[in-house]
Amino acid sequence: MKTESLKELLEQVKAGELAVEGALEKLRHLPFEPVGADHFAHLDHHRGLRCGMPEVIYCPGKTTEQVVEIFGKLAETDNNVLATRADKVTYDAVVRKAPSATYEEKARAIVLRQESEQEKEGLIALVSAGTSDIPVAEEARVTADLLNQAVETIYDVGVAGLHRLLQHCEQIQRANVVILVAGMEGALASVVGGLVRVPVIAVPTSIGYGTSFSGLAPLLTMLNSCAAGVSVVNIDNGFAAGYIAATITSQAMPR
Amino acid sequence: MKTESLKELLEQVKAGELAVEGALEKLRHLPFEPVGADHFAHLDHHRGLRCGMPEVIYCPGKTTEQVVEIFGKLAETDNNVLATRADKVTYDAVVRKAPSATYEEKARAIVLRQESEQEKEGLIALVSAGTSDIPVAEEARVTADLLNQAVETIYDVGVAGLHRLLQHCEQIQRANVVILVAGMEGALASVVGGLVRVPVIAVPTSIGYGTSFSGLAPLLTMLNSCAAGVSVVNIDNGFAAGYIAATITSQAMPR
Amino acid sequence: MKTESLKELLEQVKAGELAVEGALEKLRHLPFEPVGADHFAHLDHHRGLRCGMPEVIYCPGKTTEQVVEIFGKLAETDNNVLATRADKVTYDAVVRKAPSATYEEKARAIVLRQESEQEKEGLIALVSAGTSDIPVAEEARVTADLLNQAVETIYDVGVAGLHRLLQHCEQIQRANVVILVAGMEGALASVVGGLVRVPVIAVPTSIGYGTSFSGLAPLLTMLNSCAAGVSVVNIDNGFAAGYIAATITSQAMPR
Amino acid sequence: MKTESLKELLEQVKAGELAVEGALEKLRHLPFEPVGADHFAHLDHHRGLRCGMPEVIYCPGKTTEQVVEIFGKLAETDNNVLATRADKVTYDAVVRKAPSATYEEKARAIVLRQESEQEKEGLIALVSAGTSDIPVAEEARVTADLLNQAVETIYDVGVAGLHRLLQHCEQIQRANVVILVAGMEGALASVVGGLVRVPVIAVPTSIGYGTSFSGLAPLLTMLNSCAAGVSVVNIDNGFAAGYIAATITSQAMPR
Amino acid sequence: MKTESLKELLEQVKAGELAVEGALEKLRHLPFEPVGADHFAHLDHHRGLRCGMPEVIYCPGKTTEQVVEIFGKLAETDNNVLATRADKVTYDAVVRKAPSATYEEKARAIVLRQESEQEKEGLIALVSAGTSDIPVAEEARVTADLLNQAVETIYDVGVAGLHRLLQHCEQIQRANVVILVAGMEGALASVVGGLVRVPVIAVPTSIGYGTSFSGLAPLLTMLNSCAAGVSVVNIDNGFAAGYIAATITSQAMPR
Amino acid sequence: MKTESLKELLEQVKAGELAVEGALEKLRHLPFEPVGADHFAHLDHHRGLRCGMPEVIYCPGKTTEQVVEIFGKLAETDNNVLATRADKVTYDAVVRKAPSATYEEKARAIVLRQESEQEKEGLIALVSAGTSDIPVAEEARVTADLLNQAVETIYDVGVAGLHRLLQHCEQIQRANVVILVAGMEGALASVVGGLVRVPVIAVPTSIGYGTSFSGLAPLLTMLNSCAAGVSVVNIDNGFAAGYIAATITSQAMPR
Amino acid sequence: MKTESLKELLEQVKAGELAVEGALEKLRHLPFEPVGADHFAHLDHHRGLRCGMPEVIYCPGKTTEQVVEIFGKLAETDNNVLATRADKVTYDAVVRKAPSATYEEKARAIVLRQESEQEKEGLIALVSAGTSDIPVAEEARVTADLLNQAVETIYDVGVAGLHRLLQHCEQIQRANVVILVAGMEGALASVVGGLVRVPVIAVPTSIGYGTSFSGLAPLLTMLNSCAAGVSVVNIDNGFAAGYIAATITSQAMPR
Amino acid sequence: MKTESLKELLEQVKAGELAVEGALEKLRHLPFEPVGADHFAHLDHHRGLRCGMPEVIYCPGKTTEQVVEIFGKLAETDNNVLATRADKVTYDAVVRKAPSATYEEKARAIVLRQESEQEKEGLIALVSAGTSDIPVAEEARVTADLLNQAVETIYDVGVAGLHRLLQHCEQIQRANVVILVAGMEGALASVVGGLVRVPVIAVPTSIGYGTSFSGLAPLLTMLNSCAAGVSVVNIDNGFAAGYIAATITSQAMPR
Repeated sequence: MKTESLKELLEQVKAGELAVEGALEKLRHLPFEPVGADHFAHLDHHRGLRCGMPEVIYCPGKTTEQVVEIFGKLAETDNNVLATRADKVTYDAVVRKAPSATYEEKARAIVLRQESEQEKEGLIALVSAGTSDIPVAEEARVTADLLNQAVETIYDVGVAGLHRLLQHCEQIQRANVVILVAGMEGALASVVGGLVRVPVIAVPTSIGYGTSFSGLAPLLTMLNSCAAGVSVVNIDNGFAAGYIAATITSQAMPR
Repeated sequence: MKTESLKELLEQVKAGELAVEGALEKLRHLPFEPVGADHFAHLDHHRGLRCGMPEVIYCPGKTTEQVVEIFGKLAETDNNVLATRADKVTYDAVVRKAPSATYEEKARAIVLRQESEQEKEGLIALVSAGTSDIPVAEEARVTADLLNQAVETIYDVGVAGLHRLLQHCEQIQRANVVILVAGMEGALASVVGGLVRVPVIAVPTSIGYGTSFSGLAPLLTMLNSCAAGVSVVNIDNGFAAGYIAATITSQAMPR
Repeated sequence: MKTESLKELLEQVKAGELAVEGALEKLRHLPFEPVGADHFAHLDHHRGLRCGMPEVIYCPGKTTEQVVEIFGKLAETDNNVLATRADKVTYDAVVRKAPSATYEEKARAIVLRQESEQEKEGLIALVSAGTSDIPVAEEARVTADLLNQAVETIYDVGVAGLHRLLQHCEQIQRANVVILVAGMEGALASVVGGLVRVPVIAVPTSIGYGTSFSGLAPLLTMLNSCAAGVSVVNIDNGFAAGYIAATITSQAMPR
Repeated sequence: MKTESLKELLEQVKAGELAVEGALEKLRHLPFEPVGADHFAHLDHHRGLRCGMPEVIYCPGKTTEQVVEIFGKLAETDNNVLATRADKVTYDAVVRKAPSATYEEKARAIVLRQESEQEKEGLIALVSAGTSDIPVAEEARVTADLLNQAVETIYDVGVAGLHRLLQHCEQIQRANVVILVAGMEGALASVVGGLVRVPVIAVPTSIGYGTSFSGLAPLLTMLNSCAAGVSVVNIDNGFAAGYIAATITSQAMPR
Repeated sequence: MKTESLKELLEQVKAGELAVEGALEKLRHLPFEPVGADHFAHLDHHRGLRCGMPEVIYCPGKTTEQVVEIFGKLAETDNNVLATRADKVTYDAVVRKAPSATYEEKARAIVLRQESEQEKEGLIALVSAGTSDIPVAEEARVTADLLNQAVETIYDVGVAGLHRLLQHCEQIQRANVVILVAGMEGALASVVGGLVRVPVIAVPTSIGYGTSFSGLAPLLTMLNSCAAGVSVVNIDNGFAAGYIAATITSQAMPR
Repeated sequence: MKTESLKELLEQVKAGELAVEGALEKLRHLPFEPVGADHFAHLDHHRGLRCGMPEVIYCPGKTTEQVVEIFGKLAETDNNVLATRADKVTYDAVVRKAPSATYEEKARAIVLRQESEQEKEGLIALVSAGTSDIPVAEEARVTADLLNQAVETIYDVGVAGLHRLLQHCEQIQRANVVILVAGMEGALASVVGGLVRVPVIAVPTSIGYGTSFSGLAPLLTMLNSCAAGVSVVNIDNGFAAGYIAATITSQAMPR
Repeated sequence: MKTESLKELLEQVKAGELAVEGALEKLRHLPFEPVGADHFAHLDHHRGLRCGMPEVIYCPGKTTEQVVEIFGKLAETDNNVLATRADKVTYDAVVRKAPSATYEEKARAIVLRQESEQEKEGLIALVSAGTSDIPVAEEARVTADLLNQAVETIYDVGVAGLHRLLQHCEQIQRANVVILVAGMEGALASVVGGLVRVPVIAVPTSIGYGTSFSGLAPLLTMLNSCAAGVSVVNIDNGFAAGYIAATITSQAMPR
Repeated sequence: MKTESLKELLEQVKAGELAVEGALEKLRHLPFEPVGADHFAHLDHHRGLRCGMPEVIYCPGKTTEQVVEIFGKLAETDNNVLATRADKVTYDAVVRKAPSATYEEKARAIVLRQESEQEKEGLIALVSAGTSDIPVAEEARVTADLLNQAVETIYDVGVAGLHRLLQHCEQIQRANVVILVAGMEGALASVVGGLVRVPVIAVPTSIGYGTSFSGLAPLLTMLNSCAAGVSVVNIDNGFAAGYIAATITSQAMPR
């Protein structure tokens, strides 16, 4: 509800084109939609306008029925729909309601592509330290792809074999933004952060031995990075990294 | 040392224009410089080219003498120089060696501006939850300013009085990137993250009662933000936020 | 055992109406009851008088047999009986002993309603940030309902889509007390706390990505809330929230 | 900005009594006030209406100058003013600007009483486990007192000498709400919670040996209380307890 | 190897009754025994003499085969044998080798009683806060019983219903030592500690909601107990409590 | 208030020797005493009878005035008085009121000995791992000494030089109970625990490098001791260890 | 790429024996190899030369297909191949591709021995505190054995029965390096560290009761060891210990 | 007390050359020495023989008097003496007793060199990530130097400017062992670990912003290092690193 709309609405009231009760209603009516008989969810249809991406379904803690119903509601718009952390069983239920939905197995994501693809906005370098970090990286890739970004993946280039990374150095430096996915000690973030002049979004993963503490170790590494260009998202949160990268690359366009 | 330079160097060797020993030396000679009789520091003059910002001096743990000597060396180049977390005593020593250096008291930073100012690249909205968070916010402002970014500050607009924030909503939405500085519970990050389509760099601060645990509470809040566009830097690390914001806004320019 | 009773008892002794041994017994006899051949539990029948709610059965760590036996004993009084964190298997065993018991699936609670319903005492606004938080919210709802409170539920109104919350603002402000259930970063507590003048009971949930640390993140958020009217209960402890809300709303009555 | 006001405003616009620009301004104009040349604070004059208590000044992290200026601004209204965690030096500066301000030494609070005292609304039992917990308890007392509540203090009645507590049992049971302040292991919360039918607001304090971990131990104790009526605020946060207690006792009045 | 034995051995050498090599061997030969072809264990047969209890088998992390073989070896002595944290499968395997072994299901312990029972040495009051704490309490009971102590159990007397505990007060005060088993917030330790003059061994259990953090909350409570006579063992470690209680009660005999 | 007293009191009421009101008063009158005009403390004179030791003053968090006043009140009885964690300034103030009080500098304790010394009850071996642990050990020694126990100190016998400990092995084994004080990694607890058949009270100290985390490391070591006879008190809590040791050795007497 | 090679390459360019493009290629061509159609891994064939051991496959987080493919690629060289943390299912899949591979069940490792065995380089004493620590110890043994080291195992000699350890003292002192594997409290590290003059590599294991916190307790013990010669690896990381021990013993050879 | 000595002693007893009492004394007499009238320390003169380094004085927690007395006792032998974490005041007191003692200011160590210097045994590369880490590195250098090792220092070569490190790559690879000192995120450990075939001893330092948590972040990084040759010592424990490095390099000599 921007100032212009508000002004226009007030003008309509003044001109008698809009009744007070109607204006009241409009002022109160915001674009969200309750779901289910007992309103177990409130879909935020406004988010696409406000934040540049439609609401995304985070599956854990929701029943399959809830996911299916929310997915269906979101599919009724013409937007793309994304459900993250979805297992195969959930997908099988969703696809019965939304037959065009596909399942990105490595990323554990359900994707429904309804918007026509546009020219890619920017280039994201998606780097993972190890093979075991790939599921998280793939969640980032699927998200960024859905948000119309070009993504180049460079997997398994951890710092224990530095030459693997250095070999891809120029490729990484060409990107508008780097997504860095690493478990264990997460040192790759600092090394890459020291090599590039673009933002590095670091994603700690829960892969590792005991004192990784399910991702706490790489999280702390990344937060304390001696290279200054590194910011951090939640452990295993590939989705956030893909989303943030897209908000950054979209800066490369005139606004 | 880019591929082109390497190729050129090899061509010179082939043409006999450069002796093997000389080439060897060049291949080995990288632009860093040891400081002090006992080499207590290695200045990384190359960083400006590689990462877009000259090396910055983090003062804690360094003696005043070390800070002065490093500052002096960096000042010999024509780059801007920045020393963070500097107390007044350190500044007084630095300014004797670098008389043009100024002290940003609220930000606890020493600044030496040697590069001519250019047109500002992008617009950063710098938002703080409380008055007590201002020192950290100011460190971000000084850093971003030195990196040629326009910064608008909106301080003390925490979520306990939501209308204060909503009033500045459009101003925030106009920016290319938001820096969000908050202590206590840090909830402002999620609220702002839900209102904008640009990246939000969240800085937790160590301001708060007992279970803030010196900033752990807002750090966790920000990492778990239900709004997807939020990435996080270290507790009280205004410098990193200012730096990252600049790497993002510089994307708005053709590269 | 109030002062009046004690005085009365002493008067009876003085008057010879009560033998010393009998008085001794009465003074010692307090209304609790051992359960099981080996006294695995001591039912506190006195709690209803003292605290306003009969003893509640917390199921984890108890064998099904123990739950059934305790439930049966409590059912012999005419009080309502509540067992929390009960799975379906336990319910199936309980219902064989107490056929009127019902199972609240979303809340994972077994309920036996034996007291006649009275006029509702107060109004509780029960707000959840996400759909995934509903099981915890439902535990609060079932508890408060059993304690004779009116409850209005407003689910999935997290701060990432602030307008959903603001739309329900007046509804929330009408209540005598607010129960706020949120996982992830729990920022909703601070925002709601800043909008109302009644007490807010915040319940962190264990829903979230890695650094939620099974609810630690929203717990810290809520404890550090910059809005002053927020107090906090244990992670996922919907029962406590429902119970406390009822102790508060019952203040609205003359005592 | 209540619905009625909005309706009235729209009616005025319709009737031409209010110009669109004027209405726009009113809709945007919310009762907060920037403080200082550089707007280091935004006073939330609206909070008194919305939450029942004027904005309170939390002193740590603010310069003395900032506290004085904010205090002065708030004093210009006719509301009571409260500054918490204030040292004597800050008070000495404040009192020069607001001569009627008094200093509650034990509570470390600056108080300016400008509203005429009214009949006390409810009764708060303020219980502390030890003598060392008194400063935190006093912060609660000062806050509740300023909010027009009657407070009875019962200090140093920790569970190691249970009879001290049991002696005050009836006094505690008479109150509308209990504030419970305890450090070390905080067990008093559970014991008191088991004795009363009114809400217990528990405040952990940072008093204790090593593994108290500056209040973490009593915080966890209180969150895990086996007595159901206990909710918890931040470590050492007497202010929040006093404020919440007042929001509860004010329920005892007809609304 | 006491001083007297050493002296005697040296006398024998001097007298030529013992060859140097033989003495060397004796000095080196200590009463432990390797188990298994690959020496996966070294049984410490000396422990019974040294510490008053034969070696005990802690089952987790050992294969069933290893438990059976160690149990068999220990059974070859005439000592009692105890295996803790044993599941039913392990017992079924053990009983085939040691047919007299019995399974204490609630305590998850395998017991082989080979020593003739003696008069009980002392009296242990074994108190649990809840029904869910019984498995840990039973491990303590089985251990103390095997060590020839009389144990009286008082279960489910948590502080939320203080009168249940007070009713058993004299029974508890009669004991030589108290074992206190409690989960959730563990406040019972402080209350009981304030009522008795004998040592209280507190055992935190992992029973509880979220912030119990698997027993961390009662552990901290017990370590910070404001009642001075409380010492603490590991979470869920009923065995240690039973053992320590026996070392204390055995002090009640002339040494 | 034992059963016998209660019976006697009731008999007196029955016989008319005691008025109901008087009996009521007696039943309510328990031996504690408020201190200070504002009752900042409630002295528990009953504790000596109930727990075997008079109330002890823990100084941190109390003002010097409060310590002096409480100390004076306790001194009015004929009991010994002990104030722990007292600095020299506090002692200087106390001694003006209680001239016979002495200051145990290493233990930071104020001691007033008013009871005539009796024959020592038992023997405590007080072992410290390092010289830096001595202040905590001395607090234990002063406490146990005041409680009429014989204490033998064996300091600086940490496991890095095992022969130092083994040399004192028999001396330790002669004791009725061992107090074990250790910082750094606290391994001494397990080693000593494996050598004796009496209870070992382990006190972790906050002495150590970084990951000692102010005593957390030895605390965890001691709680996880592979030797079964070890129970643990709070970090640096020498007082508790001395007190508990006395409750144990007093078992060696006929009760 | 050593200096000598670089010099030689430059000489070849100068002499025209090597074209610029070819040199460029050689400078860029480093010995790693992408695996899989989508390059899910980059094998670091250079590691054997650089670090003395071929790349090792850490199985968790990798699909069985990925492990098989990587194993196959590594097997194509003539190096030994090692896969750690492999379950039996993975081995069954691997052995179909690499029939000579064997499964070390206790160590959960897949081993392919392709290099001819050489004379053992040094002697490693591999000591475990308990039987339950053997799986971790065996991972160390398998690793060191594959790296051509002699290993002597001394299992189940924890400090609770010190004589078991002391009996093996000379055997341990003969070694070039000690690997120390211990769970629970990990005190063995300090004791052994105080007995030898060679490096001790300590491995904490996740075996233990509650406050072992999955190995945190022995980790802290080992880091805080009062014996100076102890360094520590990650919890349960037997592989690292075996590898590091080999890097140390290989120092015993002339370089 | 080796087997040979024991055998010889027994032979002497047999031959009547040594009385039983004398043998007994010798067997008991171990080379440690009590210090101070109250035996506040037990010097372990045997450590030099057993572990290759005389006992070292860790100053924190000891009074200046204690340090001086212990230092003096150790100086009476002809061994070198080392006191770590000593401030200037302590040195000034020590030097009055031991005039040849020198103060290593950067390392905060007091050194007394009494043994004649021998040829250096091995080469240690001592690498620090930043200038602020130098005090910890210097403690390692002083220790290793005193233990007769050659040390080459390479300071301020953190991974943010990778070329600084790569330039020193060969120098590092020449060493027998690497000591790696790093604060902030400690990523240098993994990078260096991936470049060398010798053991890397990593020392985390407490230098860094908020979430460094006083060195916890680099500690976790180093423990989780994806490069296998890294073992870790306590935070800021330069002494341990220097000592361990010496135990490793001494392996390069024939034993």
